[in-house]
Amino acid sequence: MPGGLKVDELLMIPGPVPLHSRVLKAMVKPMINHRGDEFGEIMDYCIAQLKDIFATKNDLFLISGSGTAGMEAAIANFVDGKIVTINNGKFGARLGLIAERYCETEKLEFEWGSSIDLEMVEKALANGAEAVALVHNETSTGILNPAKEIAELARKYDALTIMDGITSIGGDDVQVDAWGVDVAIVGSQKCLGAPPGLAAVSVSERAWDRYTGKSPYYLDLNAYRKSVGKTPTQTPYTPAIPLFYAMYEALKIIEEEGLENRIARHRRLSEGCRAAMEAMGLDLFPELNEYSQYSNTITAVKMPDGVSDGDLRGKVRKMFGITIAGGQDHLKGKIFRIGNMGNVSYKELLNTIAAVEFVLYKLRAISGYGDGVKAALEVYER
Amino acid sequence: MPGGLKVDELLMIPGPVPLHSRVLKAMVKPMINHRGDEFGEIMDYCIAQLKDIFATKNDLFLISGSGTAGMEAAIANFVDGKIVTINNGKFGARLGLIAERYCETEKLEFEWGSSIDLEMVEKALANGAEAVALVHNETSTGILNPAKEIAELARKYDALTIMDGITSIGGDDVQVDAWGVDVAIVGSQKCLGAPPGLAAVSVSERAWDRYTGKSPYYLDLNAYRKSVGKTPTQTPYTPAIPLFYAMYEALKIIEEEGLENRIARHRRLSEGCRAAMEAMGLDLFPELNEYSQYSNTITAVKMPDGVSDGDLRGKVRKMFGITIAGGQDHLKGKIFRIGNMGNVSYKELLNTIAAVEFVLYKLRAISGYGDGVKAALEVYER
Repeated sequence: MPGGLKVDELLMIPGPVPLHSRVLKAMVKPMINHRGDEFGEIMDYCIAQLKDIFATKNDLFLISGSGTAGMEAAIANFVDGKIVTINNGKFGARLGLIAERYCETEKLEFEWGSSIDLEMVEKALANGAEAVALVHNETSTGILNPAKEIAELARKYDALTIMDGITSIGGDDVQVDAWGVDVAIVGSQKCLGAPPGLAAVSVSERAWDRYTGKSPYYLDLNAYRKSVGKTPTQTPYTPAIPLFYAMYEALKIIEEEGLENRIARHRRLSEGCRAAMEAMGLDLFPELNEYSQYSNTITAVKMPDGVSDGDLRGKVRKMFGITIAGGQDHLKGKIFRIGNMGNVSYKELLNTIAAVEFVLYKLRAISGYGDGVKAALEVYER
Repeated sequence: MPGGLKVDELLMIPGPVPLHSRVLKAMVKPMINHRGDEFGEIMDYCIAQLKDIFATKNDLFLISGSGTAGMEAAIANFVDGKIVTINNGKFGARLGLIAERYCETEKLEFEWGSSIDLEMVEKALANGAEAVALVHNETSTGILNPAKEIAELARKYDALTIMDGITSIGGDDVQVDAWGVDVAIVGSQKCLGAPPGLAAVSVSERAWDRYTGKSPYYLDLNAYRKSVGKTPTQTPYTPAIPLFYAMYEALKIIEEEGLENRIARHRRLSEGCRAAMEAMGLDLFPELNEYSQYSNTITAVKMPDGVSDGDLRGKVRKMFGITIAGGQDHLKGKIFRIGNMGNVSYKELLNTIAAVEFVLYKLRAISGYGDGVKAALEVYER
């Protein structure tokens, strides 16, 4: 950093996201009894707001754990026979790794960055499966997968739909009930704008009918159901109280912004980011088909030839104090990713685009700078 | 509350504990990349300090989840055959409920509040078991169980010792390596004085030799081991970052106080509390034998005849803003409990004793007030 001042890092990664000062400050509140009225009221508010954001009337539970814990709860509690897991990115692959600990798992694999072939999904379901699990917004590749269409196929073959909505819910349009998603999961540190450490899971009656009773003890959603049924509302095991304070405040902010405005903001940010990358002459990573879309919460871009991951991300961090994401696993060095989740605004996006553009210019990967920022502003102006 | 001011609640329960202002303030720090150097340094410090507090050179991992998640990780990762679980209180019973999801479980049951019969433990181990699981400090009854003696028996019969040290580690003497405890667990929101939401688990080489690979995905400690081995140090799934900030500061406070001083403080607080209860004419709940002791982090007291749980705890809360704990499950209404974990000092203990004494006097359960506070001060003066 010129001058050497150590600044707060601007996180433009797919979570954790920068926290609003109100959310940060919410955590300074002293601890309270987690079986008392005040905590119960916090729980009640969070559950009601999250149901609105999920667009569901189903049960909804908050787990003190990461989104991965939420995905494991979803599979372990409701699938006993065969499951089809759809893998077109790292988190889709993880679904398969989780599922195989519990049940027969058919892993439908697509090249990372490519789109899901719905015919293959239908074929797998037609062969018989109790459930299908998919990632709605695959952050590892920047693709929005066709959750609604897959849920429709699942209904057709009487299978449950388990949807990792960890990085879409709260930032993109998700209609859990209208789409017929039986179990949906969100992570706290993504579009909701809260710190990491909580997962929320919604469960349909149809899923409860297939409750296995074979989940991990810590993730047994029936224990959560019983605790939510108590007065005051509770959790079965001691909850991560400061994270609930933060979630409460993050949800208040969403309520104030309005969910529709919030989704529109995420869309405009990602559109601006994509326009900027293309204006700089870079290629977006996802290969879309008629059912898939670019993610509205993260942009994945092919790394220009001759530029290393460390060069680009290291310099953006060192010169500007901005952290962007690299590729994961075999995509490391092949792509970079810019997140726009949570309470990020256009100014942070412009910061980031300007920094990426300048660094790529300095690395001689592009011939000038300014086009990216200009293209993003043109999107803003529309 | 006279005057009606809504004050901060003083929590004198067995966790969550009141947080030091430094720990609260630590959580206001903006989010950082959990795969970056700064987070790695936080992890490194926490792991090193916790190893000192556990008195172990074993591996140690931090899980974003409650102590129950830590207990489940301990059992699921390292026990495949038969386990003996020791139940002389609610958390001992929970060990059995967790274990039976993974392996053949022999539940050794003792009346809650009574002490463990070591002969029965030896008999069970002699019959063949891969592991024994016990609760060191049973908060539901106020008993400190003989962990060292049980670990010795386990070694004799080549079984692993899994110890729930959730409410003893950091507040009482625990010697993981010297005692031969293979897997030990602590919760963040107890004697360590951090907020709830993290569990730390230590794992011996002997335990690794029996690694099952059959744990829940989220709790697979081999994944944690791989992530701790990376540079910078990491966690396999996104960690609850603010809770790590808080843990870091809580451990700094422990380092400043000195572990020996801290344990001595917990002992004096509990001794003062017990002396006060006895001076008030009340009976302590635990029935000790030659191997058990009163807990040094919580005091369990028989409820005086004719006093309801709601009366005592409700009035202490309403009149003084102090929350004490009731009995759990079938002990509800039969005992009450006063915790002295974490960074609680003598002044909070005196507050609590005075309040309990005054309320019991008002309920006509005791004939006067002042004796309890006096007895506690006599312990302080020694």
